[in-house]
Amino acid sequence: MADFQTISKLNPHVSVDCVIFGFDNNDLKVLLIEQFPSTNSVSDRGSMALPGNLIKEDEDLDDAAKRVLKELTNLSDLYLEQFATFGNPNRLSKPEDRRWLEATREIPEARVITVAYYSLVRLERYSPTPSGFAKNATWVNINEVGNLAFDHNIILEKALSILKKDLHKIPAGFELMPEKFTLSHLQRLYEIILNTELDKRNFRRKIIKSGIIKPLKEKQEGVNHKPARFFRFNKKYQEAPDFI
Amino acid sequence: MADFQTISKLNPHVSVDCVIFGFDNNDLKVLLIEQFPSTNSVSDRGSMALPGNLIKEDEDLDDAAKRVLKELTNLSDLYLEQFATFGNPNRLSKPEDRRWLEATREIPEARVITVAYYSLVRLERYSPTPSGFAKNATWVNINEVGNLAFDHNIILEKALSILKKDLHKIPAGFELMPEKFTLSHLQRLYEIILNTELDKRNFRRKIIKSGIIKPLKEKQEGVNHKPARFFRFNKKYQEAPDFI
Repeated sequence: MADFQTISKLNPHVSVDCVIFGFDNNDLKVLLIEQFPSTNSVSDRGSMALPGNLIKEDEDLDDAAKRVLKELTNLSDLYLEQFATFGNPNRLSKPEDRRWLEATREIPEARVITVAYYSLVRLERYSPTPSGFAKNATWVNINEVGNLAFDHNIILEKALSILKKDLHKIPAGFELMPEKFTLSHLQRLYEIILNTELDKRNFRRKIIKSGIIKPLKEKQEGVNHKPARFFRFNKKYQEAPDFI
Repeated sequence: MADFQTISKLNPHVSVDCVIFGFDNNDLKVLLIEQFPSTNSVSDRGSMALPGNLIKEDEDLDDAAKRVLKELTNLSDLYLEQFATFGNPNRLSKPEDRRWLEATREIPEARVITVAYYSLVRLERYSPTPSGFAKNATWVNINEVGNLAFDHNIILEKALSILKKDLHKIPAGFELMPEKFTLSHLQRLYEIILNTELDKRNFRRKIIKSGIIKPLKEKQEGVNHKPARFFRFNKKYQEAPDFI
């Protein structure tokens, strides 16, 4: 299935993988593909995996990530940030992965070094559709991700840890939240990324004090509870988040 | 000069490069090697470069970085953090680099993808000595780094930008400063990394307010000015720097 004509001859075992996070105001999701089951597969179901594939000759890594994402999920026009490279010599050694590699790769036993990218998007703006060796391309709730192909659970964990680490630095909300939002929605995002419940009053006090967000005059309309105020992110904070 | 017996056959064009920052209470320096001049070189001087080389078969990337650093500079026992991977197809195309590659590599025209690591150390603890293809291994003031081999200036810039970005998050000072230090020394480090002069009173007020450091009872001794108080980093901050 791989395109042997065009993959890199000099670096035939370097790949890119994409971790695309989407938020729908309630759940944090990640974009996964289902690989076509290999012919030797015991089940009819292919493994779920991050969208990823080998790089081509003379293709820059960033370009490879964009191309592969488009080829497998038809998504384009999103900003991909490189975050880590994974090269454990055993990262492809699970039996089900070996079967799939035997069906798709010229040297299935070759160790592959993969450069991983992530992106944060507002889920409603992107509708993936599968192509290439993807049988399916779908948003999966971050809490419902099962065993992924290769070391993709490790790659996903690493991306989540970066999201967590940078939450107050390059606030993930800038990308994941709509232009205007309520504090409840923002708290929900923080709780999911930090994987912990936050005290409502404490969260509100601290996030307002931090200067990351600014209140708008506008409030919710047509809700059957006390309308909540809308906020937006403080663009100044985005540009110069440092305290000195 | 490269060891063709042991470098990776399946990933023969993947390398690691190390950016080692050292601080001596006054200057921020980076560890550079001088490559042995290639036989075709017009000058007697080899290019200055970051310590780096190709990975071996079945060698994890982190292990490769440690090994290469040791082989070229005899430094060991320092923590290397992977920070980015560089794969621009033209990263090795400068004429002087091509000459060196022709003298040392099996396929000198092959594009090499390099995984970069960085480390922060207290300079006085590490005395590099050259070996392998390093003719020299030396600390160079960050402001006096000239044209480096390959894309190593770009790699160094990226490492510096990460140092800057993480300065208040994983304070670089934890690694770069001695156990106890004066506020003047800490300000000097911040000024070098941020590449800007900071107002003394503002810096002191903000850094103390941030909770990153704690004052000690101890003061300087035997100085011919008013003795300054010593500070240390707040270990609690290091573990949980987040504001929520």
